Amino acid sequence: MGKAVGIGLMSGTSLDGVDAALVEIEKKNGNIEVNLIESLAIQYDDVIRRELMEVCSPLSATVQKISSMNMFLGKEFGNAVNKLLVKSNRSKEDIHFISSHGQTIYHQPLQGETEVDIPGTLQIGDISVLSETTGIAVVGDFRTADMAANGQGAPLVSYVDYLLFHSTDKSIAVQNIGGIGNVTYLAKNGHSNDVQSFDTGPGNMVIDEVVFRITNGKSTYDKNGQIAYKGKINQALLDQLVNHNYFSMNPPKTTGRELFGKSFVTAIFNDFGDIDSADLVTTVTEWTALTIANSYNDFLTGKGNAIDEVIVGGGGSYNPYLMERLAYHLPDMNVYTHEKYNISSDFKEAIAFAILGYQCICGEYNQIPSATGADKPVIMGKTAYTHPDAFKRLESLRSVLT
Amino acid sequence: MGKAVGIGLMSGTSLDGVDAALVEIEKKNGNIEVNLIESLAIQYDDVIRRELMEVCSPLSATVQKISSMNMFLGKEFGNAVNKLLVKSNRSKEDIHFISSHGQTIYHQPLQGETEVDIPGTLQIGDISVLSETTGIAVVGDFRTADMAANGQGAPLVSYVDYLLFHSTDKSIAVQNIGGIGNVTYLAKNGHSNDVQSFDTGPGNMVIDEVVFRITNGKSTYDKNGQIAYKGKINQALLDQLVNHNYFSMNPPKTTGRELFGKSFVTAIFNDFGDIDSADLVTTVTEWTALTIANSYNDFLTGKGNAIDEVIVGGGGSYNPYLMERLAYHLPDMNVYTHEKYNISSDFKEAIAFAILGYQCICGEYNQIPSATGADKPVIMGKTAYTHPDAFKRLESLRSVLT
Repeated sequence: MGKAVGIGLMSGTSLDGVDAALVEIEKKNGNIEVNLIESLAIQYDDVIRRELMEVCSPLSATVQKISSMNMFLGKEFGNAVNKLLVKSNRSKEDIHFISSHGQTIYHQPLQGETEVDIPGTLQIGDISVLSETTGIAVVGDFRTADMAANGQGAPLVSYVDYLLFHSTDKSIAVQNIGGIGNVTYLAKNGHSNDVQSFDTGPGNMVIDEVVFRITNGKSTYDKNGQIAYKGKINQALLDQLVNHNYFSMNPPKTTGRELFGKSFVTAIFNDFGDIDSADLVTTVTEWTALTIANSYNDFLTGKGNAIDEVIVGGGGSYNPYLMERLAYHLPDMNVYTHEKYNISSDFKEAIAFAILGYQCICGEYNQIPSATGADKPVIMGKTAYTHPDAFKRLESLRSVLT
Repeated sequence: MGKAVGIGLMSGTSLDGVDAALVEIEKKNGNIEVNLIESLAIQYDDVIRRELMEVCSPLSATVQKISSMNMFLGKEFGNAVNKLLVKSNRSKEDIHFISSHGQTIYHQPLQGETEVDIPGTLQIGDISVLSETTGIAVVGDFRTADMAANGQGAPLVSYVDYLLFHSTDKSIAVQNIGGIGNVTYLAKNGHSNDVQSFDTGPGNMVIDEVVFRITNGKSTYDKNGQIAYKGKINQALLDQLVNHNYFSMNPPKTTGRELFGKSFVTAIFNDFGDIDSADLVTTVTEWTALTIANSYNDFLTGKGNAIDEVIVGGGGSYNPYLMERLAYHLPDMNVYTHEKYNISSDFKEAIAFAILGYQCICGEYNQIPSATGADKPVIMGKTAYTHPDAFKRLESLRSVLT
């Protein structure tokens, strides 16, 4: 009955693995309903993670490595889908489409100095390889379409946040804390054209990298905020961090590993390497919470956009220290996680990309210009299918929907 | 009635510009008929050409440059399409689709030493940007799908050669001389599964680079073979060149700038820089003709595959010295150009990619495993459309065809 079955794939800037979500999507009176059937998180092994780190660093990313990893990840994503099919007891014939974000290895939303140094973004994990590995049609590589309309190519999940959470009763900030932090602001009774969205700054990216270094690579994140709870805030470091000029830039704005990656953390260790290592974690966690709260104060409530409720998703929502500090800095708002709305914080983004892919397949806009800064709405995404049966399942879905 | 109107775009390894061909395609009793309506060749300006050279050289190709040029070329290709529309007095509403090869910046069909160093290929010129620039749906990025099925990702035009030239009367070698030389062998009365195809070696690539250097960049190719006619063959150099180990490898095999690019020419100048510069051009041109003839002798006629006719296409077919030498080395065959079959040699590849894109849109296989070495047939190509009207034109075409 017009119900689409899709698999969303998200591989975030934290480079830890790929999340896969099998969902049913149904359009009712123009509204989209999504139901998570099964999910799976695959961790990259150390070899892949190291290769990815190299490909994500402009100095070590050769065209050979980019090309190889594009193919390799396409297969890796396909393997994740095949495992999810087994786990959910489904076969490829049951699935209309896969929608994959891909692995971002470069994102530069601003014009450079020369004519040809134009804004660009690069997501790898080839969708044809993914389709061949699974036998299912694949949508992916979303961001370039928005940039072609002069958008920043991010944030993309805002459109889905609007579909899922917009309300006539209250104004809502949907906060994702993945590698990067991002907010979608949904004014009470607002239209999709009124949605505001921007990257608040780092999410787990700086915390994770600091933890990785002080544990000599044994831990890749601060599980349950255990380290942060033990340390105390170093005010001098915190003062330096909050003064980073990203936070004074007006939205729409996006950021990534280019600003808050390894070299950023190296600079912290250069200047503050002698302070207690737990204190380092506590301070960058406090700072991460503060960047979110300050962003709200500076660019939302401070500009007359009331916030009744904050709905936090992404890995950061599982760090209780970070959540406590965020609630502390936002005393007038209810701070919840996505679970309150029966949506997995862990798989929120994978679910979101399934919805974006679904819209692409239907030939409908799946982006919000006011969120990305684009001139106009566009349909984002590219589609690949390597065999006629995958193509036919896609077409059968379209024939029901359109 | 079921006639598709498409635009094929080809930007070859010679990096000189992009060819655009507006064609009508019709399927009749399973055979495809193609009719060239209008064509246009856009030369890259010096800035773009220089940037492309840098992106095509693994040492200077940064992820930032790759990302920027991916977006820039998408727009550049779109501008070429828009000019072709003006020239042909058509509007975007008249065109069902664009099919773009993209600019190859890396092609490595063989497994490397480490697990993750898998074969890969990278074509840039983003198809979403191209769609946004033109308002027309775009198919592109073909090669990865074949590689996903363990093919070499090349040659792709063989499938189209089969559609256009297979014959019950004679055995045919379709020879393209672009940057790289490639042959498609069509046995008399053969089936598509019997097609053989491989890269014979350099096409114009080495000749062009030698001319570029001896003229200090004033000429980018040997127009009408003028320089080659003036010089004489240097036997020592020729002997060294014909012994390159690529020529002893068995097909299927593909090659590119990695083997016969700048560093290859630098080696020639290091060893033979003191000989007359016209002699250099004459010798590499003779060698290019010889590599084709030797390839036929070693891997086709030498293995019992008779050749009655050679149909040459690509820029090299306009070099009379090269054509004369080729005919000289193939005394038992009729050597023609594509023009004999009313197909523009210049636009052969652009026309071919329009046909490959058309098949992708129809959800039909567009590759020949025996040519690429793949395990099985696949549908190559990815599709992008950034506005509903472009999507609807694509769907309207599909509804008539399928």
